[in-house]
Amino acid sequence: MCEANVYIVDETGKSELFLESVDKIIPEGDKLYLENIFNKRKHIKARIKEMALVEHRIVLEKLVD
Amino acid sequence: MCEANVYIVDETGKSELFLESVDKIIPEGDKLYLENIFNKRKHIKARIKEMALVEHRIVLEKLVD
Repeated sequence: MCEANVYIVDETGKSELFLESVDKIIPEGDKLYLENIFNKRKHIKARIKEMALVEHRIVLEKLVD
Repeated sequence: MCEANVYIVDETGKSELFLESVDKIIPEGDKLYLENIFNKRKHIKARIKEMALVEHRIVLEKLVD
């Protein structure tokens, strides 16, 4: 399976896991809709910072209001 | 390998392949930088419309100047 783990990086550069095994990501305005292979769904106000699919790694940056 | 094929969809909904076997995508302002597993690199003024990683499919929408 070719899902990816999605991390959030904070302003200090520290990243933490936000959702594992993500299949779908759909940008919706300033939010992202994420769905993983276990049907877990999350919304987050963030932008994609970088994706490295072979490493199964997607990094998001939270958007501040 | 868990790379994805990247398609561009036009305003009529038709999609065409832009770059196959993409590993890395990095947003840079209003552009996206793409790199595939064969070290082919492309820039495009576009935004991510949707990603379906299990299907190895990423769809971009071109940004008009």
